[in-house]
Amino acid sequence: MLGLMQDWPLLIHRVIDHAGMYHGARKVISRSIEGPIVETDYAALRRRALKVAKRLEKDGIGLGDRVGTVAWNTWRHLEAWYGITGLGAVYHTLNPRLFPEQIAWIANHAEDRMMMVDLTFVPLMEKLQEHLPLVERYVVLTDGAHMPQTGLKNAIAYEDWIGEVDEDFAWKSFDENTAAGMCYTSGTTGNPKGVVYSHRSNILHSLMANGPDMFGLSAKDTILPVVPMFHANGWSLAFTAPMAGATIVMPGAKMDGPSIAELLTTYRVTHSAAVPTVWLMLLQELEARGTLLPDLRQVVIGGSACPRAVTQKFRDVYGAEVMHAWGMTEMSPLGTVCSLKPEVAGLEGEAWLDIKETVGHPPFGVEMKITDDAGTELPRDGKAFGRLLVRGPCISGAYFKGEGGQILNAEGFFDTGDVATIDPNGYLRIVDRSKDVIKSGGEWISSIDLENLAVGHPDVAEAAVIGVAHPKWDERPLLIVVPKAGRTPTRESLMVFMEGKIAKWWMPDDVVVVGEIPHTATGKIQKMALREQFRDYRLPTA
Amino acid sequence: MLGLMQDWPLLIHRVIDHAGMYHGARKVISRSIEGPIVETDYAALRRRALKVAKRLEKDGIGLGDRVGTVAWNTWRHLEAWYGITGLGAVYHTLNPRLFPEQIAWIANHAEDRMMMVDLTFVPLMEKLQEHLPLVERYVVLTDGAHMPQTGLKNAIAYEDWIGEVDEDFAWKSFDENTAAGMCYTSGTTGNPKGVVYSHRSNILHSLMANGPDMFGLSAKDTILPVVPMFHANGWSLAFTAPMAGATIVMPGAKMDGPSIAELLTTYRVTHSAAVPTVWLMLLQELEARGTLLPDLRQVVIGGSACPRAVTQKFRDVYGAEVMHAWGMTEMSPLGTVCSLKPEVAGLEGEAWLDIKETVGHPPFGVEMKITDDAGTELPRDGKAFGRLLVRGPCISGAYFKGEGGQILNAEGFFDTGDVATIDPNGYLRIVDRSKDVIKSGGEWISSIDLENLAVGHPDVAEAAVIGVAHPKWDERPLLIVVPKAGRTPTRESLMVFMEGKIAKWWMPDDVVVVGEIPHTATGKIQKMALREQFRDYRLPTA
Repeated sequence: MLGLMQDWPLLIHRVIDHAGMYHGARKVISRSIEGPIVETDYAALRRRALKVAKRLEKDGIGLGDRVGTVAWNTWRHLEAWYGITGLGAVYHTLNPRLFPEQIAWIANHAEDRMMMVDLTFVPLMEKLQEHLPLVERYVVLTDGAHMPQTGLKNAIAYEDWIGEVDEDFAWKSFDENTAAGMCYTSGTTGNPKGVVYSHRSNILHSLMANGPDMFGLSAKDTILPVVPMFHANGWSLAFTAPMAGATIVMPGAKMDGPSIAELLTTYRVTHSAAVPTVWLMLLQELEARGTLLPDLRQVVIGGSACPRAVTQKFRDVYGAEVMHAWGMTEMSPLGTVCSLKPEVAGLEGEAWLDIKETVGHPPFGVEMKITDDAGTELPRDGKAFGRLLVRGPCISGAYFKGEGGQILNAEGFFDTGDVATIDPNGYLRIVDRSKDVIKSGGEWISSIDLENLAVGHPDVAEAAVIGVAHPKWDERPLLIVVPKAGRTPTRESLMVFMEGKIAKWWMPDDVVVVGEIPHTATGKIQKMALREQFRDYRLPTA
Repeated sequence: MLGLMQDWPLLIHRVIDHAGMYHGARKVISRSIEGPIVETDYAALRRRALKVAKRLEKDGIGLGDRVGTVAWNTWRHLEAWYGITGLGAVYHTLNPRLFPEQIAWIANHAEDRMMMVDLTFVPLMEKLQEHLPLVERYVVLTDGAHMPQTGLKNAIAYEDWIGEVDEDFAWKSFDENTAAGMCYTSGTTGNPKGVVYSHRSNILHSLMANGPDMFGLSAKDTILPVVPMFHANGWSLAFTAPMAGATIVMPGAKMDGPSIAELLTTYRVTHSAAVPTVWLMLLQELEARGTLLPDLRQVVIGGSACPRAVTQKFRDVYGAEVMHAWGMTEMSPLGTVCSLKPEVAGLEGEAWLDIKETVGHPPFGVEMKITDDAGTELPRDGKAFGRLLVRGPCISGAYFKGEGGQILNAEGFFDTGDVATIDPNGYLRIVDRSKDVIKSGGEWISSIDLENLAVGHPDVAEAAVIGVAHPKWDERPLLIVVPKAGRTPTRESLMVFMEGKIAKWWMPDDVVVVGEIPHTATGKIQKMALREQFRDYRLPTA
């Protein structure tokens, strides 16, 4: 027996229709790439998105075609997403911070037929275009007046391009499981893998991620998404903000402290989302200026941990709550947000900071558990740590073109590649990446915990810990450090520094001082390269 | 091209699994039918729901079977819903306030195979059971100690019944469009019609209805749903509260002022939902006691309008926001909630009350528009009024067994049967029922507005307005009034009273004083009976 409710597929155009109709006057404010701050609203943005769809169709783009975007957060990028998906085509954000050859590889793998490019990235794409034979046209996200001389194929200024059509267009209808967007994971190993979001997953994700204990955006809020739309589905804020009718403030290309501070104060931003480095820059700026942020209430931080002092300062000085969040490109991206449940809401001091340091708990729609290598579930006691597995309607079931093969286990769980603990209240703490954890005599040692400790040493600029083969324990930790300029950290001073701060059996078996540690294009330590480099390293304990 | 996200059907058991896992210690507090207040939590409730499912299966209940419930809001009723739906069976709430013959008709039409009955309703069901040949067993929602002597077929106390099994049960899997629940509409005309909710619609409804501008429940809130679970899908709070991890306080059979006041203060309730009469009783109680409600923040009111003075008093004296909501059994039920968008957030005094008097604006997932009789959309100017049409994934597409035939128009909209205005900010005002509106010379007159005005006359206890045939204007309004005890309202005094307060052409053409106005079992005026009674009435203007 089936229910007798209406057939109303979860399609993305319904989000901008809702925003245009019920929150039409709500502002969309962007720092443009050309310079000035541009204000529009959801009603106007919807009309322009209809033009984008109509214009794309005229260029022969249709259901399932991939349209690449190499762009910052602006109103044009936002309306492009709605225009593309409203036609049944697929937005494919490319991360301009990747190495050029990676960008080309990804665009070719996705078979992007068109590229929408910010002025900033025209030179990059000019260099790349000979490697992108499938791209039929480059639309530069600017107007005729700012259009540069360029050899990009069939190049046209976005405003001229959509200016050729009117907004008389009916959104296309199709199954809600139709592809809507793509974003490649920038893994530290192997080729990037394409994550393919559906209309259904993006809508469900926004509904789930915007509960009062998660992002919690209302029509009275103003959100500044510093996190770029090309990073992990833009944390889905391109859908969540219009769905909630929240005012949105887009930073364009300028993510420095003074530029963000200007937007936060001028537009009385209440919510923001970014990686910690942005907040560190911002704090310096605010302190230098002596500026307060009376409207800012909530700051969601992802990507890596925010220092405890920053969390504390945001609360005590600025009256804003810092909330860690954790997610993955494969999770649309939200996994958890650290809001305070009643069980921990009354904590103060160090106990409060201990909870604030976790990445929080999942919304309805994200299932998670930790297991050992044999797949046995481990206790949720805040101590046991194991592989973190997740399941839900907004989590990848496969990568584009089947890369990586079968990625779900028999129960349908996806292995995040993270190692984590979960406490009895459901708060998640990411301990390490599973490929980086050191397996010593059947027990696991967190390389990240050791690195975080080692960088506290006054002579150390950067630290990496890898597991090195050991005849008795299988693996033991090797600490690799880069000295601060003019300092000479020694094995002995590091061992003395670390001793007593961690379990005895977690102590590195040796320390190596190096001039440089290899990084990926997005700044992650390349542990695989380090492991290769130290493959034959013989520990003194071996 | 399809998205590559996981296949994770929206099934109701996932709500209680999430609540049990991540909000397991959060309390579920109920005033029991036996008397004492009973406290449990989501983890325990989930375990007992598993037993209900297992026990139902043992009794031969399976996918698609309807299980009737005749019960107040208690933890047992809540866990029964999860047990029933977790098996793929269908909860079917029966409204005990209906006439007994209606209850029997509905139970037979739905083909309920089992009945779960509160102690309160055992005598009712004993009288009805000879008319319910399809019901195989009556489970009385109590324990063995309180089980009455009864001739109900295969009667058993709920606690004994679930006590026969353990909780080792795996929720069943099926399509998310599978039927989950039923509720019949108590129309004023014709037979009741069965609305059939699906797992998908209930999950989507809870996600949509719990946005920060709608119910907005968080894990830190405590909700007291006074609205019974048998009324319009219980406003979906049985799903919304556990999904959010909110503490829930169930009033059992006692909805009087002192009983509700006791629960609100003892359990520091933050949110509540009820019809206005409950709040009027509560206000009297609070004023008599001199009690304040420091924790109460939000009061959602549906069913009919809350007097402006009550809205004002809740804000000024109790610091709680009264929010009108509008919905229908056919809408799962939420259509709109009156939260304040930025455009109206700064209003004060009468302008504030004018907005607060509307039923608000819809969440994402509810489309609405108003049209004239020809189906042409009318402007959203707050003045034009027309038939209110709605569309969405949690809105009926058909009634059970096809009753009422095709109920959607060519665009897939459902006609609510209401006449309404929508203002430029999207705020909805219900003007009348479309069958009650008086069509005078092509223009519409709201019978409700006239009734609301007439009951303000000092001699009038109750008023009804119907359209009566008129040779020139098609229909003209006839005002029918019931006098207050010992008073004798006259045509002339009513005409003088109303004059100048409404447009001249809205003035009733005549006034009739009667001893009584007919009502339905749920207290609505039976306008059809009145129209029948006055079918041949000759207006003096005719």
